[in-house]
Amino acid sequence: MKDFIHHLDKAFENRLRLGIMSVLMVTESADFNHLKESLGATDGNLASHLKALEKTGYVSMEKRFVGRKPNTSYSATEQGREAFKKHLSALEALIKGSM
Amino acid sequence: MKDFIHHLDKAFENRLRLGIMSVLMVTESADFNHLKESLGATDGNLASHLKALEKTGYVSMEKRFVGRKPNTSYSATEQGREAFKKHLSALEALIKGSM
Repeated sequence: MKDFIHHLDKAFENRLRLGIMSVLMVTESADFNHLKESLGATDGNLASHLKALEKTGYVSMEKRFVGRKPNTSYSATEQGREAFKKHLSALEALIKGSM
Repeated sequence: MKDFIHHLDKAFENRLRLGIMSVLMVTESADFNHLKESLGATDGNLASHLKALEKTGYVSMEKRFVGRKPNTSYSATEQGREAFKKHLSALEALIKGSM
């Protein structure tokens, strides 16, 4: 039985979401523009996938002012980091099982 | 820039499709029931994802009789094998970049 399928998280079943988590796993937090540039995403696409990840509790958002300018930054939650690690090990099992 | 995103294939952006390809990468061909049992999938879900993979040219289907009984078997095409290998290496880059 291909167990890895049941360990793959539906919340990460999208390239952009994989990209978002991959950036947030290796940084404390990242603001919208940094995510947009590093992932080559459009505003709308990035905003909708960030919202979906927030809804699942895997990403948190913080709004603050940097000088006079409003700034929105995103971080992976502890729950998000754990879920993504689990997803990555299921992907590793997939890769090993497909060689 | 997170290049791996652009090397991830949208056709494989689904757990069951990953499972189908993973089975077909290590077998010459597999019939519908074998795929259904080894992936724990429902008839409808499996049929629709197999059809989608056929449409992209990544999977081929063969209908024949085994004794008196009709049998439908599926195989990964050469194109499908190449595309899935490329997808897996992009996933490996994702995993490495998220540690």
